Amino acid sequence: MADYRKMWESLGLNLEAHDQLMDILPPTYGTVFLNQENRPEAMEYFDFVFSEVHGQRIQELLDHKAADGKVIGAFCVYVPEEIIRAAGGICIGLCSGADIGTAQAEKVLPRNICPLIKSFMGFKLGKVCPYFESCDMVVGETTCDGKKKAFEILNDYVPVHVLETPHMKREKDKALWRSEVRDFLTEVEGYTGNKITLDSLRQAIKESNDKRRALLRLNELRRYDPAPISSKDCLLIEQIAMYDDVSRFTAQVNALCDELEKRVQESRGVTEPGAPRLILSGTPMALPNWKVPHVIETSGAVIVAEEMCTGLRYFENLVPEEGENIEQLVEAIADRYLDINCACFTPNEGRMKKLVTLAEELKADGVINCTLAFCDPYLVEANRVEKVLKGHHIPLLNLETDYGQEDSGQIKTRVEAFLEMLDK
Amino acid sequence: MADYRKMWESLGLNLEAHDQLMDILPPTYGTVFLNQENRPEAMEYFDFVFSEVHGQRIQELLDHKAADGKVIGAFCVYVPEEIIRAAGGICIGLCSGADIGTAQAEKVLPRNICPLIKSFMGFKLGKVCPYFESCDMVVGETTCDGKKKAFEILNDYVPVHVLETPHMKREKDKALWRSEVRDFLTEVEGYTGNKITLDSLRQAIKESNDKRRALLRLNELRRYDPAPISSKDCLLIEQIAMYDDVSRFTAQVNALCDELEKRVQESRGVTEPGAPRLILSGTPMALPNWKVPHVIETSGAVIVAEEMCTGLRYFENLVPEEGENIEQLVEAIADRYLDINCACFTPNEGRMKKLVTLAEELKADGVINCTLAFCDPYLVEANRVEKVLKGHHIPLLNLETDYGQEDSGQIKTRVEAFLEMLDK
Repeated sequence: MADYRKMWESLGLNLEAHDQLMDILPPTYGTVFLNQENRPEAMEYFDFVFSEVHGQRIQELLDHKAADGKVIGAFCVYVPEEIIRAAGGICIGLCSGADIGTAQAEKVLPRNICPLIKSFMGFKLGKVCPYFESCDMVVGETTCDGKKKAFEILNDYVPVHVLETPHMKREKDKALWRSEVRDFLTEVEGYTGNKITLDSLRQAIKESNDKRRALLRLNELRRYDPAPISSKDCLLIEQIAMYDDVSRFTAQVNALCDELEKRVQESRGVTEPGAPRLILSGTPMALPNWKVPHVIETSGAVIVAEEMCTGLRYFENLVPEEGENIEQLVEAIADRYLDINCACFTPNEGRMKKLVTLAEELKADGVINCTLAFCDPYLVEANRVEKVLKGHHIPLLNLETDYGQEDSGQIKTRVEAFLEMLDK
Repeated sequence: MADYRKMWESLGLNLEAHDQLMDILPPTYGTVFLNQENRPEAMEYFDFVFSEVHGQRIQELLDHKAADGKVIGAFCVYVPEEIIRAAGGICIGLCSGADIGTAQAEKVLPRNICPLIKSFMGFKLGKVCPYFESCDMVVGETTCDGKKKAFEILNDYVPVHVLETPHMKREKDKALWRSEVRDFLTEVEGYTGNKITLDSLRQAIKESNDKRRALLRLNELRRYDPAPISSKDCLLIEQIAMYDDVSRFTAQVNALCDELEKRVQESRGVTEPGAPRLILSGTPMALPNWKVPHVIETSGAVIVAEEMCTGLRYFENLVPEEGENIEQLVEAIADRYLDINCACFTPNEGRMKKLVTLAEELKADGVINCTLAFCDPYLVEANRVEKVLKGHHIPLLNLETDYGQEDSGQIKTRVEAFLEMLDK
């Protein structure tokens, strides 16, 4: 690995805290990923990307900035990345998947708050994330109370533009959201100094759609038994999707799919045929949060879909590419994003329908609904999930967890009991 | 007290659980209210109303229903009561200020959720609240994640109409909210079977404004030193405002104010002159939640304003009465409600300005910002309150509490330390 200390220093990172993080990540990665059996060879690219998570990609961002490009961070799959790229910017999904800078975060946030929110504040105040420190601006949204209000505080440290995601999906909400996306385009143009053209927007939409198509192709291959790839590897890919170069990433996912198609033909998979097949649903699992999939897959089951923001919600809908002017394309973008099934909406029936359809299509034996602690939208919606799945006789296990490792044993016990109950 | 058991039975209350509640309330009320010294005589009416909290007022609601009237419940000061009354309905603020039916509530809700939400679900599932059981319909809103999502569950047990309160207060948000209020009017007309006329709406606006004017007059009198009335009594009045008959309540508040004006002339108050003067800010204190004001006022301080939903936010703005048609009046109503300073908005600068102005106008020595546990909007906003008050050198004590009594001693210690620090 190249020596990136000077680069980190130039970003103002707290090198000591950053070293601690970088000391933990590789061994954890080894245990969770490299120890897997029958892993596809094309995972090599993603292993490399992860090994360079604070290295090569950061250098690319800094090169982009040196050429007067802007880097814009986001914390939610509702942020329309097409618009940022159409203005020559790079959109980075900031991860917030580890307990970092907790003491600093708790100086400005309540103790009992969603770990993802505490994490992003900790990353910022602790100065340990080179992505965060590379961002010229952050785009927030109003999807949940905790983030909505925490962005007011974050704005003390980095400029935050907040998109108002509505609470419902009626025509008037769609109108509000379209107006938010239109205003965002103007904001991004002003911020980057680059006018968005019909061509640049169309090109950005196509690139994002290509990425989504590649991820959909990958997910489509998981319907086979034995599943040709683990959920852990898919989750990693979905996490990397949020910060990697779009075209390069897309090409690599497609190369992986080529390999997986051969595996399917040969009936080769990551488990024995007949292993219990589960759908993992719930709140996002931001990098490097792999705890629950690791517990599930080392318990003998295979996860065949992530009905999560780090998963299907990120790529399941495409933006129609046919718009004849910028206005039409912007509306198509807005409508595509409003279709995402987030628990921030009331009601959120799309998610219930999706879970039932997925379970049927993927021949899943059950659903694990995993929610981050203190996340009211998903924790309360767990009741709706339970009601709908019970109505369809689909077994469900509800889990609530955070970024600590203390509950791994307890989760394993519950997952194993759930698998036994499935009687596979 | 009349025997209301038959009435409670007819409402389907769980009499055993209800008895337990009614066994606790009177002695608590005695300790908190009747033990106060120098209490205004006109508090007699409010003592009577409270002694009949599940009696006479419920009988009035049932009489109203027997005459084909509708009773509509609400959980938030954003629900426009004028519209309900203009259609001949009665609007009841459902209280949710006590730990009731917790075990039942936790069957459908997460354990770590705001006590107010757990309380309303517990009241409903436990069948202990005759107001809730009298409601033909409940009006919810989207002010916080917990309530927004809990209303989906509550709708399994009672019809809930959810008003979409926006996240911001820009022109487009105002347009969305106005449309919500217009649709609500149509909904209420359909539900009650009564057409709202210009006259009935104007009359309802005037009555609500009269109530607000009376409460403002009461609050105006609290600026004097010694304060002529305690915060506990004012809070009780603000709580009763949510369910009492509007005209009768207004007359009684005005009668109380007549008495208080004499007290002011005679320099009579509930404390010695010079007692520390505090502003209480934060989340609503729903009936029968009097814990924190009781602790504060028995520690020698006097609270001179409640910057809360059970307080100023409920009555500080009037609806302009001049509209020439229903549409204009509805817009005036919508705009008045959108002016309320709730932490559900981002940003919520109105609250910060209000706190600073109140502290100056009421010559307050400090602010106690009291938030219900797990309430993300207010708990995160506490950071903004701290920043602004520090900038104005206004002492602040942040408290986080729930409906249990276990932390009373700890709160008392912290309040006493705060008062010592004020050095009054």
